[in-house]
This record gives sequence, structure tokens and C-alpha cells, in this order.
Amino acid sequence: MKKYFYKCFDCGEVFDKDEIENSMQYLCPDCGKVDKNSPLRGILQIFYDYDSIKIKYRKEDLFRLPSGKFWLYDFLWPLESGDGQLQKINSSVTERLSLNSSPVVHLHYGGKDIYVLDDTRNPTLSFKDRATGLVAMKAIQLGIDKISAASTGNAGSSLAGLCARLGLKSVVFVPKNIPDAKRIQIQSFGADLRIVNGDYDLAFDECLAFSFAEKIYNRNTAYNPLTIEGKKSAAYDIFISSRGNIPDTIFVPSGDGVIIAGIYKGFWELNQLGWIDKIPKLIAVQSRGSNAIVNYCATGKFEYRPASSVADSICAGAPRNLYMAAEAIKQSGGEAIEVSDEEIIEAQQYSARNYGLLIEPAAAASLAGFINYRNRNENFKAMLLFTGHGLKDLASLNAWNKI
Amino acid sequence: MKKYFYKCFDCGEVFDKDEIENSMQYLCPDCGKVDKNSPLRGILQIFYDYDSIKIKYRKEDLFRLPSGKFWLYDFLWPLESGDGQLQKINSSVTERLSLNSSPVVHLHYGGKDIYVLDDTRNPTLSFKDRATGLVAMKAIQLGIDKISAASTGNAGSSLAGLCARLGLKSVVFVPKNIPDAKRIQIQSFGADLRIVNGDYDLAFDECLAFSFAEKIYNRNTAYNPLTIEGKKSAAYDIFISSRGNIPDTIFVPSGDGVIIAGIYKGFWELNQLGWIDKIPKLIAVQSRGSNAIVNYCATGKFEYRPASSVADSICAGAPRNLYMAAEAIKQSGGEAIEVSDEEIIEAQQYSARNYGLLIEPAAAASLAGFINYRNRNENFKAMLLFTGHGLKDLASLNAWNKI
Repeated sequence: MKKYFYKCFDCGEVFDKDEIENSMQYLCPDCGKVDKNSPLRGILQIFYDYDSIKIKYRKEDLFRLPSGKFWLYDFLWPLESGDGQLQKINSSVTERLSLNSSPVVHLHYGGKDIYVLDDTRNPTLSFKDRATGLVAMKAIQLGIDKISAASTGNAGSSLAGLCARLGLKSVVFVPKNIPDAKRIQIQSFGADLRIVNGDYDLAFDECLAFSFAEKIYNRNTAYNPLTIEGKKSAAYDIFISSRGNIPDTIFVPSGDGVIIAGIYKGFWELNQLGWIDKIPKLIAVQSRGSNAIVNYCATGKFEYRPASSVADSICAGAPRNLYMAAEAIKQSGGEAIEVSDEEIIEAQQYSARNYGLLIEPAAAASLAGFINYRNRNENFKAMLLFTGHGLKDLASLNAWNKI
Repeated sequence: MKKYFYKCFDCGEVFDKDEIENSMQYLCPDCGKVDKNSPLRGILQIFYDYDSIKIKYRKEDLFRLPSGKFWLYDFLWPLESGDGQLQKINSSVTERLSLNSSPVVHLHYGGKDIYVLDDTRNPTLSFKDRATGLVAMKAIQLGIDKISAASTGNAGSSLAGLCARLGLKSVVFVPKNIPDAKRIQIQSFGADLRIVNGDYDLAFDECLAFSFAEKIYNRNTAYNPLTIEGKKSAAYDIFISSRGNIPDTIFVPSGDGVIIAGIYKGFWELNQLGWIDKIPKLIAVQSRGSNAIVNYCATGKFEYRPASSVADSICAGAPRNLYMAAEAIKQSGGEAIEVSDEEIIEAQQYSARNYGLLIEPAAAASLAGFINYRNRNENFKAMLLFTGHGLKDLASLNAWNKI
């Protein structure tokens, strides 16, 4: 049996890894479907042989790993570790990327303990480095030298930055209202920047068409299954840093729905391996102006509406991973909630002033969602995901910090 | 014997720690001197009982420590670890600060291996968190709730950010040409921001006068001896991450001269303890428009000239720690070199495009200095210090990344 295989989220069909990877397939060959302004159909997930992993590894092995070293942990990733040569390449790549584990910071809000997974200290200062890291490692194994992505800004600066580290080229499609700092990050890293005349949903579609026409390896979130898989690393970080004493409720800023799907996958695996008893409740937090996941969870229907919010990173009218995100929320016993832009900016201020953590609006949605949820619930151990650094969106900070 | 004592850099006199700390003394009681636009006289250094440390600890103990945990390593810091209560406070403070060890990235330039200590991923994205961390821990032990500092921007955002994390108040004096992002960092963290009508040298003097009049604990670099002591942590990071196989030549962006003095102190200690054989050559890199250390090393004389450079973080007409910096350069067998603003910006571009490391101009001076030095030297193992993140000075990046 091969180390891992692909499985379609919609039809459940299983595919040999070579069948998918040799033909540069991203979605299910049977039911994969890309439509303008619509969630994707036929997204592939990656699974491993958990029974044999269980026999070979123990959770204590993970607890002993130095920061970030689980990227080299063979069984966790859809990479070849085979011969010594490849192992050496992987090792030099992960070292170059320095995807260290993110600090977990213990804080308080209104007398309640909360924990923050601080992903603002990743190589390009956002959560997106988790997905890009895995995609880039895969590209190197496949001998690919150019990667494309659509992005509100963070995935793009992540792709541009990590490609620059590894000597790869990148092409990044972004909406025209991208914050200056994110644009400048992408440009500084030497990426081929394409600013589309519209929003992120348009950038997503244009990037896919371009990548298909030019035969460029694509990192569009959800479309490339390794984006979901890379993001599961956050669940392992949380598991390792807490030595298995994980939080029971996690607040996840949600736009395309890939972070929440990836984190669910990580906890699902940990549960599968018998290393945790229960998957934490995953609370998708959206902005009121970009609330397709909230609506879908409430009504079971998706209807496209252009998105608009101060939290640009979670601004997606058509969450490409909508169905998998909704399933993660449901299976974990969580829910999807929306907060206003005002609540988001208040949370951004609160975090900077009281926690010394400077975050962009999308990350602040996590805290705003917690505050909202806390008014209706008690006795839970909360974790927030701070997914992007404040300096990536200076205008949002300058609005309340003028001289 | 007490764990540590203070010693005047100029007259060599030794002071009991209580004598200095109980009277809130910063400089030598005998020869300490603060003059407008002049290097300080009578700066205090902190020393420990190295013979008894040698008996108690081995270098392998350090190699086994998890990332950043050497902040809790009793013998290294001028803090009380005494009873269990204090140990608990220290532990919670360091956890809150999450001063993780910085990644060391292995890179190449022109066929030559180089290593970068990437301090852009510190809590407030600059090297200055090393000094602020120690000062803040001390403040908490002394029961102080407010700290002031003068800054070109990084020390200030560091002070503001770490104080916010710890529930302390901060007052920050900055020059009027502070980059927007640094100003916004300081404001966002809720600091009391004072923009002086002049340059950093003026901010330094005004902050000292203010702190003295208002009896506020002061973190001005070099003036407060814990700033130098905190910065020695970089030497320990380098020692630990290389498992003792340290570089032989380190390129240090230099303005006030405190980073280079602090790093020298760290390596001096490691040598004192018998854990390294040789202290690396320390190369101070300055901008041509702010080259007082270079001039002093060449002529033995200091003459005040207002400083001006694109590298704002190393812009100091009167390096307050000039004499100690010059001694560190001399004792380590290093030198002081200057580079042009154009070379600095070229290095900034090179780093972003080829290494995926986005740095501010002062940090790029390290790479520019290496390129300069390499033309005249060979067969050395180089390390660069990347001391501040690029997003802290967006204008410097935007200049070459306009749409």
C-alpha cells in the first residue's frame, strides 16, 4: 500500500496518489467542478494508513520534537521521504523555510483564560505559510519551478516569500483593493504580480484560467488539496504545545473555509490515532459583509453575494471550500457566527493595547467572535487563531492611530 | 557573594547590585556623565561569578533547552530567582513575552555560505525585544509599572508592545521623521507617544530629562545597563543553534553601538566559561550618513555630526555606547565599516528577492557590509544579523515597488 491516497470529498471515490499527481489533477476526475463565483465541487482530501501509523508512533514522540520539526515527520505529509537524498532535500527545504511552531500565548479576557495561537510570527507573518510551505515542498519534489495563486494578499505574500526562499518563481493574482503592505510584500519578493480589476472572487477565477492555459502549478486555496493538508499543521502545533491538553473551543477567522477545514482534518487525524478523545468545537467567525458560511450553515443554501469587509483576508463572496467547512463545523459540534466590522476593529484595538499583539482585522475577527460567543456560553477552554500581522494592513491601524 | 555585580566601563570600579538598584542608579556613581549629543560616560556592565557557574553547568545543558527557554536560565540574567513565587512570576512573564529563539537561516551569496540570525520574527519584529524583555522583567521584579524610552522606532515599539503584554505603561520619545509603521505600532500598543521636534539624539536627551523629572524607570539604550545585558542573548542564541560551532565573523548594524557591545558581552562570557575558544570578529556596519563609530575607530576621536540615512534604526549622531562598541570591535579583532544608502537599498532588494527575507534598511546594512567586506577578505564563516522587519518601514520598500 502506498503511504497516502486521495479521496473526493463529494463522491467519496478513492484515487491512487500517482493517478492524481502524475496527471497534475487537482479536483476529483469524476465530479470536480469549477464555476465562476461558486464553491468548488470535487475537492480532494488526503488520507494515510492510520492503523500502521498507530503501531509505529506514539504521541510522546511528537512532544519531544524541536519547534517546527514535525514538518519532517514522515507519516504526516503527502511527500516522498524514500531515499536518503530526498530526505536530505526535505531537510534543507524545511530549514530554509524555518516554519517554526507558532507560540501559544496564555491571556485573559474578562476574567476568563484564553489561549492564542500566534501565527503572526510565521516567515511572511501569516497563517498562510502553513499551506504554502507544503505546496512548495511538493513542487520541489515534483521538479516544478513556478507556482501561481490567487489571494486577498496573505496567501500571495506567503507564496512570493517562500518561493523566493527556495529559488522558485511565483505569479500572484490579487484584488484591486489589496492593502498596500501586502502588495509591497508580494512585489518585494520578486513575484509576478497581477492586480485584477475586481475582487478576490474574480482573482480566483482569473488565476485558475491563467494557470490552466500556461500549465503552471497552482496553489489556489481549496483547489490545490495540499493547501488544506498544510493547514492541518496548526492542529498538530496546538496538540504538541499543550502536550495533548487541547482547548475545547477554537475560534477560526473564515473566508474561503480552508483554515477551518484544515484544522478539522488535523484534529480528526489525532482522534483517529487515538491521541485525543474529542475534537474541539470549531467556531467559524465571519464578517457580516462576507458571511456565506454563516448563511449556508443556517439555511443549507449558497447564494453568491459580493463580499465587503474591513477584514480583507476573510472577504470571499464564494467560499471555495464552503461544503467542507460546513462539515467541519457540524462534525466538531461548532457553529458559524458573524461579527460586525466595528466589533472587529474594537477587538483589534483590544488585542494591541491589552495583549501587545498587533493583528490585522481578519485575525481580530477571532477575538470578536470569542466575545460574541462568550455572551451566550460558559465553561469552555478557548483558543483564538491570530492569523495575520497588523503591519500587513497599516490603513486599518492608521484609522484609529492618526497623529 | 551576591549573584552579580555592576562594574563601571570607564573607571573599573565595582558596585554591589543593591547599591545600584535600590537607588535607581543607571550610570557609575563616580564618573557617570550625560551630555547633550555625546556618548555616555560611566556606563555600567553586569558580571557574574563565572567560576562557580562553570562548576554548576555544562554547555550541553544549554543545547537541550527548548526555544527561548534560556531566559529562565538562572545564572545568565541579573534577576532574582530566589523563592518559588519569584520563579513562578519569571516563568509566567517569559511565557507571556514568548521571546523565542530566532531562527538561523542558512543562505548563499556569490557561492559563499552565510548564516542569518533572523530577528525579524521577534514579538514586535525587531532585535530590540531582547533588551526590552530583560528590562521589563526587571521592572516587574522591582514593582515598577511604567517605563520610558527614546527610540528611532524599534526600541519604542518594542517597549510599547512588551509593556502592553505585561500590563505595564510606557512613554516613548521618537524623532519627527519616524517611519509611519513604527509610529503606528507604538500608538496601537497604547503607549504615551512623544514626537520631538528633531532627531533621535534630541529624543534621547529629552527622554532622559523627562524620566528624571518624573521619576520613571528608563530604558534608554546604553544608559540602562540591562539593555546591553539583554542583547547578549543573541550570542547565546547563536551558540545554542550552532551547538557551539559558531561563525567567525558577524556583521552587526550599528547606530548607538549597543547591539555590538551586547553581543560581544555574550561571547566574552561564553569564552570565560570555556564553552568557546575564540570570540568571533565583530564587524560594525554603519551608514555613511551616520558613521561616528567608523570615524572613532579610525581616529580615536569623537566629533558630533547630525546623522542622516535611509537606515533610520542606525541613525545616531552621538552613539551613546561609542566607547564600549569600539572596545568590542577591537577586542574581537573586528572592524567598523561604512556603506552607502544605495548599497543598503540594493542589499534590501537582494534579501527580499533571493532569500525571501523582508528587512528594513538598517538590517540590510548587515548584508551590504558583508558584500563590502567580502571583496577584501576570504575564508571566513559569516553571520548576518537581520535586526528589523521590512514592514516596519514601508516607505523604503515602496520606493522600489510602486505600482
